[in-house]
Amino acid sequence: MSLKLTILGYNSAVPKRKVAPTAQLLEVESRMFLIDCGEGTQVQLRKAKAKFSRINHIFISHLHGDHVFGLIGLISSFQLLGRESPLHIFGPKGIQDFIMNQLRHTESKCTYELLFTELDKTESVKIYEDEKVEVFTIPLQHRIYTNGYLFREKPKLRKLNIDAIHGYPEIEICDYENLRRGRDFKLENGELIPNSKLTFDPPKTQSYAFCSDTCYWPEIVPIIKGVDLLYHESTFLSDLQEMADRTAHSTAREAAMIARDAEVGQLILGHFSNRYEDLSVFLDEAKPVFENTILPEQLGVYEILPKEETV
Amino acid sequence: MSLKLTILGYNSAVPKRKVAPTAQLLEVESRMFLIDCGEGTQVQLRKAKAKFSRINHIFISHLHGDHVFGLIGLISSFQLLGRESPLHIFGPKGIQDFIMNQLRHTESKCTYELLFTELDKTESVKIYEDEKVEVFTIPLQHRIYTNGYLFREKPKLRKLNIDAIHGYPEIEICDYENLRRGRDFKLENGELIPNSKLTFDPPKTQSYAFCSDTCYWPEIVPIIKGVDLLYHESTFLSDLQEMADRTAHSTAREAAMIARDAEVGQLILGHFSNRYEDLSVFLDEAKPVFENTILPEQLGVYEILPKEETV
Repeated sequence: MSLKLTILGYNSAVPKRKVAPTAQLLEVESRMFLIDCGEGTQVQLRKAKAKFSRINHIFISHLHGDHVFGLIGLISSFQLLGRESPLHIFGPKGIQDFIMNQLRHTESKCTYELLFTELDKTESVKIYEDEKVEVFTIPLQHRIYTNGYLFREKPKLRKLNIDAIHGYPEIEICDYENLRRGRDFKLENGELIPNSKLTFDPPKTQSYAFCSDTCYWPEIVPIIKGVDLLYHESTFLSDLQEMADRTAHSTAREAAMIARDAEVGQLILGHFSNRYEDLSVFLDEAKPVFENTILPEQLGVYEILPKEETV
Repeated sequence: MSLKLTILGYNSAVPKRKVAPTAQLLEVESRMFLIDCGEGTQVQLRKAKAKFSRINHIFISHLHGDHVFGLIGLISSFQLLGRESPLHIFGPKGIQDFIMNQLRHTESKCTYELLFTELDKTESVKIYEDEKVEVFTIPLQHRIYTNGYLFREKPKLRKLNIDAIHGYPEIEICDYENLRRGRDFKLENGELIPNSKLTFDPPKTQSYAFCSDTCYWPEIVPIIKGVDLLYHESTFLSDLQEMADRTAHSTAREAAMIARDAEVGQLILGHFSNRYEDLSVFLDEAKPVFENTILPEQLGVYEILPKEETV
């Protein structure tokens, strides 16, 4: 288990008493990524017992209030708590001015470096990479420039088959790294031992796609193909299809169609319009199209299992 | 009873899980005034069951995050809820750009008029007046330009002494308004009946002073003299006097000295540093200086009784 999603809030538009606006915390290979940051996210992070100091990268989908109004408060609290390590913020063009203008008026002295990556591309691009994880944009279609984000573990090293290796005394410990990377082994007599005889397949890499807010936009299907977990907004049900189209949001059925066509492992719906009290109607609409659909729970934790185990 | 204060939050600096940052709702003569607006205030307003549509005037003390980061969210929610009536916002110079820049980036279309009154004076000025209520600034001394606010009912009309009036058949109903306003009545025979024989004193006017954030600043004493209720910050206790001085905050003792010297009816402390878990220590320090001191309760309602009844 190396991918863990905590849903901090999943409400749309006007904040409710009991459900916070959109924000998620994703742990991948011990990295903590914050995705969107609606008003009150820092309090939700406290409730989730998240360590602020472990958050070094924040990904904002778009500059609508229910996805970004909590960012300035979090940045300010980081300052008040004496943070020193740099904070990377990814978001639409304009996000730097949006934040820096507020910091200027509050006369804040930043104790740490704020590093902005402003996005304006309409195709998917890789925006983050380290030795274990990659992050790509998922261009969405909304009333304002919007990106979802795809988080993907990098392919892992193969596992050594120690029993098999011991059958070849010539193979030394210093050769193991090459075996893990998939290379065959050549014996001194010239015989080539195929890597598959000396190693096991590596653990499956895991992936998560966050898609909020967007109308039904099948262009994202190839980008998110086969992800283990997909969060896709479903602000409305099909009976309000016209309103969904007009406001550039999705229905539960449309979210499920995206999940089905992208052959994802599991679908979490979210960003429900406040007009719906009983959210089970979203499952009723989505499940006939894509069975493995669930509703989010506030502060719910979703450990992402490899696709085969969840479908 | 015509003055009712609801404390929506009273925390300082970094938001806590259970206590919201500074925001108060004051009802005076059926008017709803919002004072400060830390992150999450709109949710606190919902918890207090406040009608958003009745809030037409917002007073911001200063542009530190714990007093203003909830304002953009409230303004946006007003829009989403289809508000049409104008909203008046009073606050330090810069508050208009602070808000409008965020609205520009979020591509918000305002459904109602936002009217800003930017303050930059260092003496107390009247900033609001209608037929029943006046509001004045209380210039405070903090690390950034800051005003408290004084809310004061206007003098009320005198009450008719109907029994006495009936002793003078010449006095007609059309004369009552002049009597309420304190005028004497001249009989046809030239005799002057003094107003005090025909009316009773009017109900006492009530007043509330909000003072956060500030160092100990006795210059406010004449401005808030005799108010029925004073909210004064007390971020620290006297053992951290040096820190209070350095950060331009007050101790509980200093808040009580202001209350004592201004001869107020009651003092509510607030804006406590997060280092204090048990807040009763603030009362221990303040009460020997000013006995009628209380601690705030989140979502607590304080109905302001005339001074004589509370001291």
